[in-house]
Amino acid sequence: MIYFTFDPRPDLKKDLEQFMPEEQIIYERKVDNNHLNEAEILVTYGEDLTPEHMKSMKNLKWIFVASAGIEKMPLAELDETEIIVSNVRGIHKKPMAESVLAHILSYYRSLPAIYAEQRAHNWKRKMPSKELNGATALILGPGAIGSEMGRLLQAFGVNTIGCNRSGKQADYMDEMIAFNQLLDTLPRAEIVLSVLPSTKETKYLLTADHFKAMNPDTLFLNFGRGDLVATNVLIEALQQKEIAYAVCDVFEQEPLPSDSPLYDLENLTVSPHVSSQSSRYLERSFDIFKENYRHYRKGDYDQITNQVNLKNGY
Amino acid sequence: MIYFTFDPRPDLKKDLEQFMPEEQIIYERKVDNNHLNEAEILVTYGEDLTPEHMKSMKNLKWIFVASAGIEKMPLAELDETEIIVSNVRGIHKKPMAESVLAHILSYYRSLPAIYAEQRAHNWKRKMPSKELNGATALILGPGAIGSEMGRLLQAFGVNTIGCNRSGKQADYMDEMIAFNQLLDTLPRAEIVLSVLPSTKETKYLLTADHFKAMNPDTLFLNFGRGDLVATNVLIEALQQKEIAYAVCDVFEQEPLPSDSPLYDLENLTVSPHVSSQSSRYLERSFDIFKENYRHYRKGDYDQITNQVNLKNGY
Repeated sequence: MIYFTFDPRPDLKKDLEQFMPEEQIIYERKVDNNHLNEAEILVTYGEDLTPEHMKSMKNLKWIFVASAGIEKMPLAELDETEIIVSNVRGIHKKPMAESVLAHILSYYRSLPAIYAEQRAHNWKRKMPSKELNGATALILGPGAIGSEMGRLLQAFGVNTIGCNRSGKQADYMDEMIAFNQLLDTLPRAEIVLSVLPSTKETKYLLTADHFKAMNPDTLFLNFGRGDLVATNVLIEALQQKEIAYAVCDVFEQEPLPSDSPLYDLENLTVSPHVSSQSSRYLERSFDIFKENYRHYRKGDYDQITNQVNLKNGY
Repeated sequence: MIYFTFDPRPDLKKDLEQFMPEEQIIYERKVDNNHLNEAEILVTYGEDLTPEHMKSMKNLKWIFVASAGIEKMPLAELDETEIIVSNVRGIHKKPMAESVLAHILSYYRSLPAIYAEQRAHNWKRKMPSKELNGATALILGPGAIGSEMGRLLQAFGVNTIGCNRSGKQADYMDEMIAFNQLLDTLPRAEIVLSVLPSTKETKYLLTADHFKAMNPDTLFLNFGRGDLVATNVLIEALQQKEIAYAVCDVFEQEPLPSDSPLYDLENLTVSPHVSSQSSRYLERSFDIFKENYRHYRKGDYDQITNQVNLKNGY
């Protein structure tokens, strides 16, 4: 039996049922211990399992997590079992890259000003539009997501400089630098984009000195984690116009409280952690599920993609 | 002597003077008959010459028009002389394609809603974001500009269908159709984008029937000419939700008067004919000028690019 602890759209359920007509499938918006005891495969968003539930997993062989985040899973307890845990890492790549390009192009082509003039019923042709082609972008964290952004930026004629811990080559980067070359390289970039995760090394990686080193024309985008830069450092850099504009999808404190001064900064776009959202999210997740289900039924457990390393937690 | 009937930025003038140190260059924001009489090369935006000025072109060999529009030039009179007329056709390609992609991505990734929630100090994560990859775009007029848009759309994984009079192949189009197949093809597209010029065949090409044939999810963009569709037809289609959203950079009446109902349509972006604007416009124009100036000085008049066909007016 396959147990979904959420209730997908009717069209997606129909598609699953046609894909595996022999299977008994239960959809329920909570974790029920009886169902759990019967389930061979569990499909979850990864936020509903507790260590307590471990006792009710008598038949469970595979947990498919239809999200990238697994930090709320009972990883240590699962590590003591033979249960395979896999997720949908990389599923955010396309929607996130589209969001990042949307914000970059919106800034370069003056969309916020165009929208404001429309609200005022003004036909104002003097806009501060710039061309993106020929710009240089520095991408902090050129992994699967950052490289997809690099690919699209290169299509627009943007020079891409990737930056990671070691400076080792990454896809769609014209050049690579290591974290310790960051301060020297920042003045060359007009776009500084981070998709870094939060780790000991990336927490508060960007300091006031980094913002002072940036070109005053710089567009800074943070689509990784909010603790890359302290909020007061970012506010200072924007108020002092050390950089021209910033777009943040992530913040030190989320949700951002309604009295946060960030909402009112004229040179900041507050994006409420939505860059990875997509109407096609579950559709994509289920495509990954179906592919892996085929491997599972054949007994090719090694072929199941995105298996979680339960010791390291990623 | 080279006579500019406008006054470029100091850095651009300096660059020109370093490029051709031997040349006498005059910059003046009007057409002075004495200067015109002495000039061998005239550089103009193309809106300041009258048939009267023809008498004062005793030494003129080449008119470089630093714009794409030449409809205000005394073309018939120039056609009776040996003067070469060339312009900067194609210069709008990159900024226009960037603007179009900006608006498409902004719509797909919910930027207007993100901006509105920020103004309201709301952290609202429920956004109607869609993924652009996998969409199908129908491009009316896949010439130099439309094909550049096709190239970028393909980079985002969009299927491109080009549409021109004959249906003959164009660059970066996965498929081509002719104008007479339009009505049958519209239901397949989620994006309908026009960059068509205004001609007898394209004027009011899109009728109420075309909008009714479109998918209700359609994003329609007009970046060609405002008379592609009658304003009342567009308003009706948007009010009746026959299509989901429209972005117009061009209108039947420009400037759009401040009491136009278009400004208040919730599913329309009014862009005040700014898609081709760029801080690098003159820089690009002068790059074309310098390249052609080399040909001119060598006597390679045939090599001068974008020579205007004075009989046809393009």
